[in-house]
Amino acid sequence: MEGKTNDPPKLEQENQEEEEGTWARQAWAYLSTVRKQSPLIQCITNFVSMDLVANVLLAAGASPAMIHSIEEIPDFTPKADALYINVGTLTPDWLPAMKIAVQVANENKKPWVLDPVAAGASGFRLKACLELLRTKPTVVRGNASEIMALFKGTEDSNSKGVDSIHESTDAVEAAKSLAQISGSIVAVSGAVDIVTDGQRVVDAKNGVSMLQKITATGCSVTALIAAFVAINPSRAFEATVSALSVFGVASEIGMDMAKGPASLRMHLIDSLYGLDQATVLNRVNISLI
Amino acid sequence: MEGKTNDPPKLEQENQEEEEGTWARQAWAYLSTVRKQSPLIQCITNFVSMDLVANVLLAAGASPAMIHSIEEIPDFTPKADALYINVGTLTPDWLPAMKIAVQVANENKKPWVLDPVAAGASGFRLKACLELLRTKPTVVRGNASEIMALFKGTEDSNSKGVDSIHESTDAVEAAKSLAQISGSIVAVSGAVDIVTDGQRVVDAKNGVSMLQKITATGCSVTALIAAFVAINPSRAFEATVSALSVFGVASEIGMDMAKGPASLRMHLIDSLYGLDQATVLNRVNISLI
Amino acid sequence: MEGKTNDPPKLEQENQEEEEGTWARQAWAYLSTVRKQSPLIQCITNFVSMDLVANVLLAAGASPAMIHSIEEIPDFTPKADALYINVGTLTPDWLPAMKIAVQVANENKKPWVLDPVAAGASGFRLKACLELLRTKPTVVRGNASEIMALFKGTEDSNSKGVDSIHESTDAVEAAKSLAQISGSIVAVSGAVDIVTDGQRVVDAKNGVSMLQKITATGCSVTALIAAFVAINPSRAFEATVSALSVFGVASEIGMDMAKGPASLRMHLIDSLYGLDQATVLNRVNISLI
Repeated sequence: MEGKTNDPPKLEQENQEEEEGTWARQAWAYLSTVRKQSPLIQCITNFVSMDLVANVLLAAGASPAMIHSIEEIPDFTPKADALYINVGTLTPDWLPAMKIAVQVANENKKPWVLDPVAAGASGFRLKACLELLRTKPTVVRGNASEIMALFKGTEDSNSKGVDSIHESTDAVEAAKSLAQISGSIVAVSGAVDIVTDGQRVVDAKNGVSMLQKITATGCSVTALIAAFVAINPSRAFEATVSALSVFGVASEIGMDMAKGPASLRMHLIDSLYGLDQATVLNRVNISLI
Repeated sequence: MEGKTNDPPKLEQENQEEEEGTWARQAWAYLSTVRKQSPLIQCITNFVSMDLVANVLLAAGASPAMIHSIEEIPDFTPKADALYINVGTLTPDWLPAMKIAVQVANENKKPWVLDPVAAGASGFRLKACLELLRTKPTVVRGNASEIMALFKGTEDSNSKGVDSIHESTDAVEAAKSLAQISGSIVAVSGAVDIVTDGQRVVDAKNGVSMLQKITATGCSVTALIAAFVAINPSRAFEATVSALSVFGVASEIGMDMAKGPASLRMHLIDSLYGLDQATVLNRVNISLI
Repeated sequence: MEGKTNDPPKLEQENQEEEEGTWARQAWAYLSTVRKQSPLIQCITNFVSMDLVANVLLAAGASPAMIHSIEEIPDFTPKADALYINVGTLTPDWLPAMKIAVQVANENKKPWVLDPVAAGASGFRLKACLELLRTKPTVVRGNASEIMALFKGTEDSNSKGVDSIHESTDAVEAAKSLAQISGSIVAVSGAVDIVTDGQRVVDAKNGVSMLQKITATGCSVTALIAAFVAINPSRAFEATVSALSVFGVASEIGMDMAKGPASLRMHLIDSLYGLDQATVLNRVNISLI
């Protein structure tokens, strides 16, 4: 991580007239800085995703470490540049390690990112996600259902009584409110990815629909967000938008060669590894709403 | 799952004169219905297989959920359309969740499928498989050794004293007896796959031998059986035959492009995703014995 | 495993004038014997690596079994031809099974191989690795940092007070000393792989740098060492050199077709599966230092 503080990506100030070109240059700056600095990302993630998450981080230039033992957190978490928590195959014995890792990350001012997989699938899972949410993730990334489940759970615990959130347009409002309540950047993946800090809302339009036919692509893009956020934690909004866009561009390039979900998975990783500046600058498609 | 009860696959009555064409149309009906209905399959499976199982289910059009926490079963299992239990990396702490998930599935009349991986590898494992077998799986799928181990274990517990079962032809008799004793559909994978309900026996001849050089392909075809059985649990025999055949056809198409086991794995998933009606109708090779 | 004792690979005596051709013939003898005998390798390995380790072993012709339940070890470990222990995602509940499996392997005179992943990442992990090291692994394979962490830890426990080992040339001396202290063959993976029995030191120069961008390739080559050592445990030095070289050659062939780390992973496994005698004899690049 030599040079991290000396060589941050050149991030332009965003504003209403922000051009796509600026976002694209920013996305490239994050990717090239991750390649140069190889941030160490501690991943406490689900069993299904471990292989793909590690390979996506490696392809992007980051250094993954799948370390989830509670005994190792005091020694290891302070060395990590970011922490990634994913509840995909959560059981009660994993939760204490997640919470202590978050606590150590917070104490050491390291950014951490939460993937609330299937947050609404059970009361146990929702409760765990809400507990983690209260410990101040830098970024939360989920699909519309997951973000709405978290928002609804938060609202319920605040006794505001929201009953049902179904419309896709509601996800934007749920994400904004969740960001305001939690203080986290909130990203909603979908046909178009949405990122908000509670005030600003950005559409990130890169990506292909076949990603939904590959397990753990959502988990992997959240891990990539962690790697990008590690570069400059104070600009987590920009890092999140950039990571979603870079992953989306890699999937578009991969899709040109793919014959189905398994070859897309392969070409996506290869494309992420080989992504060059011209492609990123030409392809990134981001706009402020 | 809209339309599931309204739009079942058109399954013809099977009989002694059943033609291959009828089986093939049935296999296509199952696959196309899975694609349309996207049944939710809860998988409590081994660590090695999670990635491939999830990707095979997604490629077939189903919706996998790797949820194995005992805390989530009361909330989640009733929502699933089928349950898949696989003992590949079994430890004692996983067994209670498997048993409770089975109980909830049974209470909710949801089909469930058992993969007794390496059933004979240890006394602990055999005992666990036999306990699960007594809780009425809709389908059991194993290789010849696994099915014979289960049969022998069942016989032993019934004090019938079978000492040794080695011949491949014995697997047919073991499978039939096991189906009669357990009330489950029993499938034996091999060069030719065999499926029996204790009376009828079918040969499903699609597939390629290189599948044995890819880990978790057996686990994955069992998961596919769960997805097909979810469509119409009362016709589990037909669903099982169809799933084995569709997976076998996908592997044959994949083999045409493969240069080894890793590219076969990729092309198999791509082929399963892209399989069209003409290919299924031309290739499916099933016969009643 | 029929024919194992009757049909060992023809291994020539090594000596200072050992030619590369002799090493290459030896590497081929190991690979072809693994293909013929299909040794059963019990793997207690980390979650990230399970899929790749199993697929690499299958591609090489071995028979992997991911069995880590303490209840199964008394029944199963005596049947295995070698045991593979990898601490990649270690938690305290896994350690007793590892230790008992090692004890059973040792009692049954079965070889076992240790992969001390990230040995220096935490005090907990280093202590576990050192405890395992004291129970006499046949081979230890790590990268330079891991081997140096083990050496330093061993030294510290011997009160010799080595403070810091940083130079890459130091890895050779650390490996030699560690081999002498532990009685194990020690392999250090890197741009050039080094293998030592404490006296002899060999350079194995096959391989490609992109392997570092694929998760679990180190874990997988250690598993391959276990399969090769299973053939003739009394010649573990030769088996280790051969396994590293064969894996390296497969990666070189794979690299000719790869467009990035994910396609390399696929082509590597395909190439290992298809590797022929002429390629091994032409490509293996080993020399005594």
